[in-house]
Amino acid sequence: MISVDEALAKTLALATPTGTENVPLAEAAGLMLAEDIVATRNQPPFASSAMDGYAVKAVEVEPHAMFSVIGESAAGHGFDGKVGAGQAVRIFTGAPVPEGADRVVIQEDVTRRGNLITLETELDSATYIRPLGDDFSVGDRITAPRVLSAGDIALAASMNTPEVTVAKRPEVALIATGDELVMPGEAPGPDQIIASNSFGLKAMLESAGAHVRMLPIARDTRASLNQTFDLAEGADLIVTIGGASVGDHDLVGDVTEERGMERSFYKIAMRPGKPLMAGRVGNAAMIGLPGNPVSSMVCGQIFILPMIRMMLGHPTPLTTPKRAKTTVAMPANGPRAHYMRAVLTTDDSGNTVITPLMRQDSGLLTVLSEANALLIRPAHAEAIEAGTQVSYLDI
Amino acid sequence: MISVDEALAKTLALATPTGTENVPLAEAAGLMLAEDIVATRNQPPFASSAMDGYAVKAVEVEPHAMFSVIGESAAGHGFDGKVGAGQAVRIFTGAPVPEGADRVVIQEDVTRRGNLITLETELDSATYIRPLGDDFSVGDRITAPRVLSAGDIALAASMNTPEVTVAKRPEVALIATGDELVMPGEAPGPDQIIASNSFGLKAMLESAGAHVRMLPIARDTRASLNQTFDLAEGADLIVTIGGASVGDHDLVGDVTEERGMERSFYKIAMRPGKPLMAGRVGNAAMIGLPGNPVSSMVCGQIFILPMIRMMLGHPTPLTTPKRAKTTVAMPANGPRAHYMRAVLTTDDSGNTVITPLMRQDSGLLTVLSEANALLIRPAHAEAIEAGTQVSYLDI
Repeated sequence: MISVDEALAKTLALATPTGTENVPLAEAAGLMLAEDIVATRNQPPFASSAMDGYAVKAVEVEPHAMFSVIGESAAGHGFDGKVGAGQAVRIFTGAPVPEGADRVVIQEDVTRRGNLITLETELDSATYIRPLGDDFSVGDRITAPRVLSAGDIALAASMNTPEVTVAKRPEVALIATGDELVMPGEAPGPDQIIASNSFGLKAMLESAGAHVRMLPIARDTRASLNQTFDLAEGADLIVTIGGASVGDHDLVGDVTEERGMERSFYKIAMRPGKPLMAGRVGNAAMIGLPGNPVSSMVCGQIFILPMIRMMLGHPTPLTTPKRAKTTVAMPANGPRAHYMRAVLTTDDSGNTVITPLMRQDSGLLTVLSEANALLIRPAHAEAIEAGTQVSYLDI
Repeated sequence: MISVDEALAKTLALATPTGTENVPLAEAAGLMLAEDIVATRNQPPFASSAMDGYAVKAVEVEPHAMFSVIGESAAGHGFDGKVGAGQAVRIFTGAPVPEGADRVVIQEDVTRRGNLITLETELDSATYIRPLGDDFSVGDRITAPRVLSAGDIALAASMNTPEVTVAKRPEVALIATGDELVMPGEAPGPDQIIASNSFGLKAMLESAGAHVRMLPIARDTRASLNQTFDLAEGADLIVTIGGASVGDHDLVGDVTEERGMERSFYKIAMRPGKPLMAGRVGNAAMIGLPGNPVSSMVCGQIFILPMIRMMLGHPTPLTTPKRAKTTVAMPANGPRAHYMRAVLTTDDSGNTVITPLMRQDSGLLTVLSEANALLIRPAHAEAIEAGTQVSYLDI
């Protein structure tokens, strides 16, 4: 048996970046920026007003001072002239501050009669002017790699970026295998069940930025498996579900070997989980997941999500587990790391706490659906009291 | 001025659920389930093996016991006969347990020679049989409303659900207003800037489940605004950006009033943020955001995201703020709640801690892009030391 960390190093080494493509900025949220975005302008492009008010000379500002209003500067329509002594220009938020003025008096501090304004008794001291380039200047960058947030998208727009270069979504071909499987909506025979892992994995991998092709269910024959593998052509990653164990009926290993895969088979010291098959076949990485529903989802989370992030050029493909206090005592753990289905809640002081679910049998999708975290009990962990900090992964 | 909570109650009251639609299960991840999913089958549909091994009668299991192997039960291909005394059936994970057998001995505990197996000296006591309906039974439900996770999708598939009923994505029409705006990729005039809020808001609202139409920029004329509002026809929510202040050039209020909007105008005790315009016009809710980039994004986060969740039928449209310790001391706050751009990090013990960014000027998109949280300083909050728990929202 190898440790989860060793297995992660081996599976991550199979993943290679999938290249880049250009997409319109409006479609880029959540994608992995692959090339820096560079500002081609200054923001603001001119000294601009931070408030609605009157632009004047700062030295002339004092209680009860009077100014004559000589014009107006609105957003998009600046004032062409120059502000002289005793003069003011009506100005709005975001509008250019006219030449000669170096302070905006906010409208709340002004009384206006016709074209004359009088300042109030109590004035604050702020200038309410945003200097040219206060936000960013030509050449400033949004650096890659990063997952583009809504805030990044707004900033990129402001930098005048109609299109951005992002990592291509990795193409994943999902192959569920087994004579026992039928698709949802079909009528299963007496010995059959519904294919569920491929649906769960598609959702999981797409939320991480992959594009997933769900291939037809492969039957337990060489011919059917070969036919399905042919359909996986062009994928960056092929994921098989089922048939990757050492049982007498597991053909996936044989067929992939015939197709030229350098096959590795890892017995990993983890629960849930079985031996994981891993390698490269043609231009694609390949992972063979166990057919057990919860095992396949947990192995997907632990091993395939980091590969997807690696393909996307993520700077830290391995997720650092978070920490929270467990609400219950837990016994010592055996030689295999245990990824327990668990629920995160908030305690009275607003802190996140974690509770493992009662039933950890890896056949129970109901328990996985109820869970929102995997509580990690390391191999050989000692018994702990309620209130002890433990590590977990969000799911 | 009204409090943020009062404003939230008023804006939330404008949002109404957008109805439901059916989508294929494979496309349903992340959507809001609107009707319970009901299992039409039991899982497992038969008592099934949890491991690879041999199915036998439990009473006959003891060290060195011998059995003759009379057949095989594989996933999808059960064993037709019955297991008698001294007999065993080779069985694989997920396969039906044959009649007569009530225990699976794992293959690691067995030595096989031809059709004879002998059990080892040390045997564990588990039966390795998953009873019929162990995961779920006919009539069990995945209850609505809930955002469908990858685990939910796997479970729904397993329940034989090809299609699910989800909340329709709210249609949002985004209208950026202002003569000063040009689209990314265009050449701004000397007094102009690039429209950025609509791009940021589109990303934000779509990540919450809305479908966003970005309408052409409306110019500061009644005609242009009316033309753009015509294009918003059919939207569940119209969001204007800019022109919602009380400056002399703010036409949005006038035009929407002419279009029959019952207009409310809230001065909200918050920073960043300005007066917010809110109401209903025709069949749509309407929110008028300030034009200031950071203010519009923060108001979108605080006020519009809950409306989207309400439209989706979310059980708790208002996000409960999370809690973390601040890394720095903070002065007392004034009468307006302050939503400070902040960065979440992890301290040495693995706890999440929060640090407000130095520059909180609401014109700075660079700071918003750097932030991953809004630290909430309530109105009239007292000064606090570093290490004090504060509330925050993820962004």
